[in-house]
Amino acid sequence: METLAFLGLGAMGYPMAAHLAKHRPTLVWNRTFAKALRHQEEHGSRAVPLEEVAEAEVIFTCLPTTREVREVAEALYPHLRPGTYWVDATSGEPEASRALAERLGEKGVVYLDAPVSGGVAGAEKGTLTVMIGGPEEAVERVRPLLFYARKVVHVGPVGAGHAVKAVNNALLAVNLWAAGEGLLALVAQGVSAEKALEVINASSGRSNATENLIPERVLTRAFPKTFALGLLVKDLGIAMGVLEEEKAPAPLLRLTREVYEMAKRELGGDRDHVEALRLLERWAGREIQ
Amino acid sequence: METLAFLGLGAMGYPMAAHLAKHRPTLVWNRTFAKALRHQEEHGSRAVPLEEVAEAEVIFTCLPTTREVREVAEALYPHLRPGTYWVDATSGEPEASRALAERLGEKGVVYLDAPVSGGVAGAEKGTLTVMIGGPEEAVERVRPLLFYARKVVHVGPVGAGHAVKAVNNALLAVNLWAAGEGLLALVAQGVSAEKALEVINASSGRSNATENLIPERVLTRAFPKTFALGLLVKDLGIAMGVLEEEKAPAPLLRLTREVYEMAKRELGGDRDHVEALRLLERWAGREIQ
Amino acid sequence: METLAFLGLGAMGYPMAAHLAKHRPTLVWNRTFAKALRHQEEHGSRAVPLEEVAEAEVIFTCLPTTREVREVAEALYPHLRPGTYWVDATSGEPEASRALAERLGEKGVVYLDAPVSGGVAGAEKGTLTVMIGGPEEAVERVRPLLFYARKVVHVGPVGAGHAVKAVNNALLAVNLWAAGEGLLALVAQGVSAEKALEVINASSGRSNATENLIPERVLTRAFPKTFALGLLVKDLGIAMGVLEEEKAPAPLLRLTREVYEMAKRELGGDRDHVEALRLLERWAGREIQ
Amino acid sequence: METLAFLGLGAMGYPMAAHLAKHRPTLVWNRTFAKALRHQEEHGSRAVPLEEVAEAEVIFTCLPTTREVREVAEALYPHLRPGTYWVDATSGEPEASRALAERLGEKGVVYLDAPVSGGVAGAEKGTLTVMIGGPEEAVERVRPLLFYARKVVHVGPVGAGHAVKAVNNALLAVNLWAAGEGLLALVAQGVSAEKALEVINASSGRSNATENLIPERVLTRAFPKTFALGLLVKDLGIAMGVLEEEKAPAPLLRLTREVYEMAKRELGGDRDHVEALRLLERWAGREIQ
Repeated sequence: METLAFLGLGAMGYPMAAHLAKHRPTLVWNRTFAKALRHQEEHGSRAVPLEEVAEAEVIFTCLPTTREVREVAEALYPHLRPGTYWVDATSGEPEASRALAERLGEKGVVYLDAPVSGGVAGAEKGTLTVMIGGPEEAVERVRPLLFYARKVVHVGPVGAGHAVKAVNNALLAVNLWAAGEGLLALVAQGVSAEKALEVINASSGRSNATENLIPERVLTRAFPKTFALGLLVKDLGIAMGVLEEEKAPAPLLRLTREVYEMAKRELGGDRDHVEALRLLERWAGREIQ
Repeated sequence: METLAFLGLGAMGYPMAAHLAKHRPTLVWNRTFAKALRHQEEHGSRAVPLEEVAEAEVIFTCLPTTREVREVAEALYPHLRPGTYWVDATSGEPEASRALAERLGEKGVVYLDAPVSGGVAGAEKGTLTVMIGGPEEAVERVRPLLFYARKVVHVGPVGAGHAVKAVNNALLAVNLWAAGEGLLALVAQGVSAEKALEVINASSGRSNATENLIPERVLTRAFPKTFALGLLVKDLGIAMGVLEEEKAPAPLLRLTREVYEMAKRELGGDRDHVEALRLLERWAGREIQ
Repeated sequence: METLAFLGLGAMGYPMAAHLAKHRPTLVWNRTFAKALRHQEEHGSRAVPLEEVAEAEVIFTCLPTTREVREVAEALYPHLRPGTYWVDATSGEPEASRALAERLGEKGVVYLDAPVSGGVAGAEKGTLTVMIGGPEEAVERVRPLLFYARKVVHVGPVGAGHAVKAVNNALLAVNLWAAGEGLLALVAQGVSAEKALEVINASSGRSNATENLIPERVLTRAFPKTFALGLLVKDLGIAMGVLEEEKAPAPLLRLTREVYEMAKRELGGDRDHVEALRLLERWAGREIQ
Repeated sequence: METLAFLGLGAMGYPMAAHLAKHRPTLVWNRTFAKALRHQEEHGSRAVPLEEVAEAEVIFTCLPTTREVREVAEALYPHLRPGTYWVDATSGEPEASRALAERLGEKGVVYLDAPVSGGVAGAEKGTLTVMIGGPEEAVERVRPLLFYARKVVHVGPVGAGHAVKAVNNALLAVNLWAAGEGLLALVAQGVSAEKALEVINASSGRSNATENLIPERVLTRAFPKTFALGLLVKDLGIAMGVLEEEKAPAPLLRLTREVYEMAKRELGGDRDHVEALRLLERWAGREIQ
């Protein structure tokens, strides 16, 4: 049975690695090594120094940005063995990933970009969606090992996974912000946001933002912290890079990045991404209620 | 049993009036009178000259814009009787409706704005959603007579129904256009739109546009004509009026109106609203496929 | 020699009325009457109660918005005499002015919209530019009486003066804000704003904003208060109304209104209009220097 | 007396090189070599094969984009001598220029980015403005050799010249387009564009676009071809890169790029840049007249 390795035990990576460890011998590594030791204890993985993860047949990464993946890849580079597969679950950059794939390819390592959606809850339950980019046969090789996923979609060549993830998050961003604008105008006219959402969610304007995010997090004023505004802004930046390769006019998505940059600067990147609507509320002088 | 009247037997109004006629004596009127006669024959309603609809206890209107409702109201004005209810299913303007409500109120007629969503299919099946604005007791008075609806939501004072409808359609517009921008960028990177939608619809970026409109109408290249681009642009104009009363910054929705105005001018208002994406395709030099 | 009247002795109106009083017998009125008395003393005008200004052959108004002009017109209405000319120097609304012109016309009073540019300095020196809307012969009748102007341009029918003024101010707004965006990006690259402006002002990107406003008010950090941000936002609102009558796509001017609304909400409408760039500086984390 | 070299004898480069040849021995090279021979004949320069330009003390380039400069630099690389200065008049990319400066630096060649403004007319008359980026002493070394310039501004470190040029052109673009939007709305209200410009150019909304471009090229319907729309769109792309390094919100300049991309796609990049307003005219259904 092949050995796996998982690098990056953050909020997403920690439970994802736990799913791997249930089915295969799994090496884990984390910058703060104590976390790796805790994972070993809790989930029966094996905490190892960085260079030892090169012994695994399949290496998984789930790091903040492509920069950290590249750094780890450089550190591991001398130790990498031909025939290894590298599954990068980071929400990374398509272009940088294509460059990394080429560099790893020179060592005989096959890189696949495989970001996920579904949040911490999905990571824990093992119900994530994986959007994966790379050559067909490599995708099929690793597909049975994505134990943290309920749905795996092979979306195209290397970089395509990251591109789809970035565009998905850009659509989340635009749908959320536009709903905030519209609801605030309705509230100003004496309409309760709850009633408006009841109608919209039975009509053509509905989206994940109106069906889930706003009712659960804004109307309740709970604003749980599940996905940082700063990370969404990072993903919007990646989406702008995807648009940039083509340069076709994309006024709405580009303006969406601008308004989220405003929100990040005014509110701070540590806030939850849904809190971006607080800036709209500040401008309107009222809450979405 | 009270007598109803229905004015405006267009694509939506014709089947809506048929539902009324199944449950109550129903007078019908239409500018092109032959249509009223056909309705009488097919659905057992009674085609009458305009002034006779004033005999009904509840008058329904479903006309292209608030201007036509106002014209009909002026023509009927001398004949209107106190205690009559007026249910306006037109996708109209909040401010003009408030003025109309006041004018009709001087005659003792209670005006309610009650636009619908669900399209021609929903009108035929009697499964429309009604968003209704007006005083509580008036809403309760007419609620049992909305035989064409599956869901009736009282959203606020007079004008609120129109405001919610306009905002819903503005959200439809922004979600659709932004999805088009994002998908075209992905297609340019070698991602199939179908695969991208499979991921997005299992993720946070999903909306009615990505779940239904684009798969059913764009990927198939079917582009059925169900809701004219010109009418969506009209609704966006109404939504701008809703935003205007508050003046809070709403950059995304305002830019959305601009791009749809471009699409209307370049493609023609008679096209289906989803065909707006054809302008994006033209700019990108490729199809969403 | 005809008698003139001037209503509204604010920062602009006070010196404008003084120029009239040098050449013609001039009645003055102001809501805070003490100001009228001071004008009488300083400039030899005659302070009168509101209804007495109806004795003048030509009535001038320079008030905050069209609403105040309308209120004054209603109060004066019973006293107005046919053959009177009304020169409205307010930065007002084209549509409302056309309605006012019609109402005054019923009394035989000819209304002309005649807003000015040139600021308080121009008002004092009598070097204002007047953009005037109305019938040719009326314009020629009052032209010799515009003693506060160096340049008088008859721009079109009633309302045209207000429309041109609003568009001019919208161009000021967009040119200023865009220059701020561009300069901040250059500053971030180690370019001094002063050097950048030296180049731009010798090149194709120059505007009144780069030639005068930014060097004199931003680079110096002086930010003198000459024209309130709130008033510029009001004018942008009027410009949006001008765009609205046509509905043609105007994405840049519409977005300009949105960003100035943001600035007004974040900084306060009392700030000088050039201080809008402080919001850009806040977002950039650096000054235009 | 030092020998100069000039590479790239296009519409701008040809007359610029002629000014050099009047004052110094000048080598010229052009991809289409016949042009270099013609320059030799007409202006007393010396047409040489590419590798021979390495004999010059100062090498000037004026090529379509940074890509061509890089290609030429690679071809010349083996021949370059330490102590050479390279003055790049191309409207290029700051980041790529910094990389090129570093690579040339390894050979002891000092690279300066020195784009120009003033158009073909300015190049012929020798009245160009040069915005130059690089180390102080290098700038002073080449300053006396910029015989085609009336004004030379040292704007900052390497790359700063390109950044300032791109931002200048972005301001040109936004000022021009916004003026087009505003004038079309005025024309729709019965205002002549000429009268409107007379006022605006005596007021705060004036810019190079309203003072020169629109009166001379749009009102006259002359639309002379002096600067291709495609090149302005390229410069807008460079400006976006400048904004990108900082990521601060810059909604107006970013939207400006989008609308010019639309114009390029709808009208073709070969049109003159001022013809972008023809797209606005098409949307408005009327001319700026």
